[in-house]
Amino acid sequence: MKMAHMVTNCSFSPSPAVKTYSKSPGYCCNVTQFQSSKCSNLVLKSCTATRPNRPFVARASAAVQGQTQTPLTGSQQASGHSSSKPKKVMVIGGDGYCGWATALHLSNKGYEVAIVDNLVRRLFDHQLGLDSLTPIASIQNRIRRWKALTGKMIQLYVGDICDFDFLSEAFKSFEPDSAVHFGEQRSAPYSMIDRSRAVFTQHNNVIGTLNVLFAIKEFSEECHLVKLGTMGEYGTPNIDIEEGFITITHNGRTDTLPYPKQASSFYHLSKVHDSHNIAFTCKAWGIRATDLNQGVVYGVRTDETAMHEELSNRFDYDGVFGTALNRFCVQAAVGHPLTVYGKGGQTRGYLDIRDTVQCVELAIANPAKPGEFRVFNQFTEQFSVNELAKLVTAAGAKLGLEVQTKSVPNPRVEAEEHYYNAKHTKLMELGLEPHLLSDSLLDSLLNFAVQYKDRVDTAQIMPSVSWKKMGAKPKTVSV
Amino acid sequence: MKMAHMVTNCSFSPSPAVKTYSKSPGYCCNVTQFQSSKCSNLVLKSCTATRPNRPFVARASAAVQGQTQTPLTGSQQASGHSSSKPKKVMVIGGDGYCGWATALHLSNKGYEVAIVDNLVRRLFDHQLGLDSLTPIASIQNRIRRWKALTGKMIQLYVGDICDFDFLSEAFKSFEPDSAVHFGEQRSAPYSMIDRSRAVFTQHNNVIGTLNVLFAIKEFSEECHLVKLGTMGEYGTPNIDIEEGFITITHNGRTDTLPYPKQASSFYHLSKVHDSHNIAFTCKAWGIRATDLNQGVVYGVRTDETAMHEELSNRFDYDGVFGTALNRFCVQAAVGHPLTVYGKGGQTRGYLDIRDTVQCVELAIANPAKPGEFRVFNQFTEQFSVNELAKLVTAAGAKLGLEVQTKSVPNPRVEAEEHYYNAKHTKLMELGLEPHLLSDSLLDSLLNFAVQYKDRVDTAQIMPSVSWKKMGAKPKTVSV
Repeated sequence: MKMAHMVTNCSFSPSPAVKTYSKSPGYCCNVTQFQSSKCSNLVLKSCTATRPNRPFVARASAAVQGQTQTPLTGSQQASGHSSSKPKKVMVIGGDGYCGWATALHLSNKGYEVAIVDNLVRRLFDHQLGLDSLTPIASIQNRIRRWKALTGKMIQLYVGDICDFDFLSEAFKSFEPDSAVHFGEQRSAPYSMIDRSRAVFTQHNNVIGTLNVLFAIKEFSEECHLVKLGTMGEYGTPNIDIEEGFITITHNGRTDTLPYPKQASSFYHLSKVHDSHNIAFTCKAWGIRATDLNQGVVYGVRTDETAMHEELSNRFDYDGVFGTALNRFCVQAAVGHPLTVYGKGGQTRGYLDIRDTVQCVELAIANPAKPGEFRVFNQFTEQFSVNELAKLVTAAGAKLGLEVQTKSVPNPRVEAEEHYYNAKHTKLMELGLEPHLLSDSLLDSLLNFAVQYKDRVDTAQIMPSVSWKKMGAKPKTVSV
Repeated sequence: MKMAHMVTNCSFSPSPAVKTYSKSPGYCCNVTQFQSSKCSNLVLKSCTATRPNRPFVARASAAVQGQTQTPLTGSQQASGHSSSKPKKVMVIGGDGYCGWATALHLSNKGYEVAIVDNLVRRLFDHQLGLDSLTPIASIQNRIRRWKALTGKMIQLYVGDICDFDFLSEAFKSFEPDSAVHFGEQRSAPYSMIDRSRAVFTQHNNVIGTLNVLFAIKEFSEECHLVKLGTMGEYGTPNIDIEEGFITITHNGRTDTLPYPKQASSFYHLSKVHDSHNIAFTCKAWGIRATDLNQGVVYGVRTDETAMHEELSNRFDYDGVFGTALNRFCVQAAVGHPLTVYGKGGQTRGYLDIRDTVQCVELAIANPAKPGEFRVFNQFTEQFSVNELAKLVTAAGAKLGLEVQTKSVPNPRVEAEEHYYNAKHTKLMELGLEPHLLSDSLLDSLLNFAVQYKDRVDTAQIMPSVSWKKMGAKPKTVSV
C-alpha cells in the first residue's frame, strides 16, 4: 500500500497552470504487480530520477507469470480480426467516469487493455473541493482488484499526453491496435470558471489530441483512433442534426460537407477543434478515426464496476462535473429541489453508461478504414430538462420521496426553447442494444443516491460558474 | 542606434519550443523616442530587470512634445464616430507583412496606432535560414523613420500575446477602440514542418486569440476585434462559398448556420478554431468581431511603405513563407522555372496588399455591433496557379525574361482540379475599390524582383515541407 501511494503521489503532472507542451525531462518508473495469496501490492521495480521535471511514466504490468492469452471477442471474430493474439486497446483517460467503465468492459471482453492517464481529474476535485458521491479507490488499487477478481491484467501508464516523450514511450511499448481517447478536460462549467481554465481546457484537449495523432502516425499507423466528441459540438440548429456530415444543395450544386458546428463553451469548442484536426489527418496521413459525439451520460454501475466496491465508478453530482440526470437523482435523494436552469426546454441526447461502453466496443470491433473519418452520434434518447425532472419526481414518489423542482437562473448561454432532432442510427446499425431510461433504472439510480446520501455536500449542488460573468482573473469556485 | 539595438536584442521572446501560456515574470521597459534635427534615437527610459524571464514590454512612444491630435478619417465621420479624439487601433502582429503595411496605412489615415508584436517572425527567418527579398529595418528604426517623415507616432509593445500579463498591460495602457489581430503564425508549410511546429502554431494562434478575447472582455468591452482569418478555412467545397454563413434547408426546415470548414494544414485549422472561439464569445459576452477571411496577398509596396527604404515591407519568396504570385515573380527574375505544384488547377482568391490595408480600414471604420460576429471574404479575384503562371510568363516576356514553368510534385494534400466560386461582396458594399491584377502591377512587381535579384537565395525556392511525410521528430528544414 505504501509503495502504491508513493507512485500516486509522484505521478501527478504539474498543476494545469504550469502545464507546457515543451519536452521536459523527468522520471521513468516501472511498477510491477505481484499477487500474493493475501493481497496484491504495487511495488516499484525500478525508479531512476535522472530527469527531475517530467510526469511519471509508471507502468503497472501483470505479474511475473507473463501475459495471459485472452480470448477473442465475438465482434472481433465477426469483423474478420482472426489474429490469435487479443487486440490491444489503449484507453487514454481510463481513470475517469467513462474511461474506467470502458477499460474494465474491454478487459472483460478479452481485449488487452492499457490505461494512459495523468490522474488530473482527481486533482480537479482537490482544487475545487469536490468529491464523487461514491468512494473511489486509487487507480493502482482498482487495477490490482480487477486482476485479483478476474485474473485479467490492465497496464497503466501514468503521465500527460501533452508530453510527447511520455506518449511516445507508451505507444512504443504497448503497440495499440486501437486508442480510445477520453483523456480530455470534459466539463463545460470547468472551462468557463476563468481564463486560465479556459486556456487549460483548450490547450490540454487540442494539443493532447494532436500528440495522439502524431503518435499514431509515427508509431502505430494502423491504430484506429476512437475519439470521444460531444453532441454539444452541433449546438441547437433549427434543422435536423445528422451524424457528422450533411449533404447540401446550394445554387444548383451539391456536396456533402462537415455538419456546421455551434459549440457553446470553451470545452465544447475544444472538441470542435479536435474534430477538425482529426478529419484533416485522416485525409492527409490516412489515419483511421471514429469520432463519437456522445450525449449526456447517466448511471453509474456497469457489469464490471459492480463486481467489487474497489471497482466502483465515480458519480459526480456537483455543479461543475455533475450532469443533468445524475445530479437530479442526488438532489431528490437529499431533499434538495431539482435545479432546472432557466425554462428547462433545453433538449439533449442521453445514454446509459452501459451503452457508452457498448458503443466504444462496437466502434473498436468495426474499425474505420484507413483515411476514413467516421462520426457516430452516441446517444439513445432525447429528453428536455423538464422531462427529466418529471421522470425523477415520479420515480421519487414511488420511493416515498417528495421531490420539488426549482427554476434557477441559467448560468449558461443557450437556447431554453428550441427544435432538436438528432440522428443516431449508425451505432444501432452496428448492433447497439440500448438500455433505454426505464422506471427500473431510475429506481435503482435513486436508490443508489439514497444509499450514499450521507456523503452529499449540498453546497456543491448549485451552479457556481457563470458563462457571462466569467473573467480573466483566477477564480476559486468553492469554499 | 546602440540603445535601439539593445532593445532589439533583449526584446525577443523565448524560442517557440519553450513558449508557455503560464504567467512568467520578466522585464518591463519603456522606450521613448526623441527626435533631433539629425536623426532620431531610441533610448531606454527605464528598465527594471527584477523579473528575469518575461518578454520585454517595450514601448516606443512619441517624443516629449506630447501626442499629436490627428484628424478623423472620412470613413470615421461617415460612420458616426464624431469624437474629437482620433480612434485608437492596436495592430497585433504589426511588424509582419500585412501588419506593417496596415499599421502605416492606419497611422497615415489619422488613427492612433500601437503595434503589439513579439517579433518572432524574424526569429523564424533566422531559424530556417530564410530572408526577405527586400532588406527590412528593425521595428524600432521603422517606427522612428515613420515619425521623422510624417510626425506621426506609432507606439510599440514588444511581447507575446500568449502572455496574458503582457497583453493586459498593453490593453490597459493603450485602451484600443479596435484591435486588428495579425499576430499569428501564418504559414501553412511552417505548421507542417514537424510536430513541434504544428503544436506551436495551434497553441500560439488559438491561445493568443483567446487571450485577446479575454483582454477585450476585461479591459475594453467596446473594442472591435478585427481578426485575420483565411479563405483556406473553407477548403474547396463543390458548392459556392458564402461569407461565413450559409442558409440550409434540410428535411423541410431552414436555418442559417456557420459555413462548413475543411481546412488542410495545421495553420489553416488554427484559424478555423479561432473562428469558432470568436463566434462563441460574441454570443456569450457580446464581443463585436469581424473575421476577415483573406485570400492570398501579393505585391509589396503601399503608399506608405514606398516613402522610404527604412519603411520597406518584407517580401517572402521562399518555399515556407512565400506565396504563389510573389514567389513566381522572384522565380521569373532569377531565371528559375515557375514551380507549379501538381496539376496547377488549384484556384484561390487573391488580392493586392494595397487592398488588404484598405479592407482593414473599412472594417474598422464600420465596426460590428456588440455581439455581432461578421465574416468578410477578403479577396478581389480568383486565379488558378496555372493562370498565374501564364500571366507571369507573359509579363516576363515583355521585360525580355524567358520564363519557364515546371510542375513539381505537390507537397500539399489538396485537390488539384476542383470547382471554386467564392462570394466576396461585403467589403465591396462597404466601399472597397479593388486594385485588380493588371499588366502594369505585374510589370512593377517583376521589376521589383529584378531590382533585388542579387539577394535571392535560390536554394530557398523549392518546397521543402511535405504534408504526407511530416513527422514527429524535430526537423531542420534548410541548410
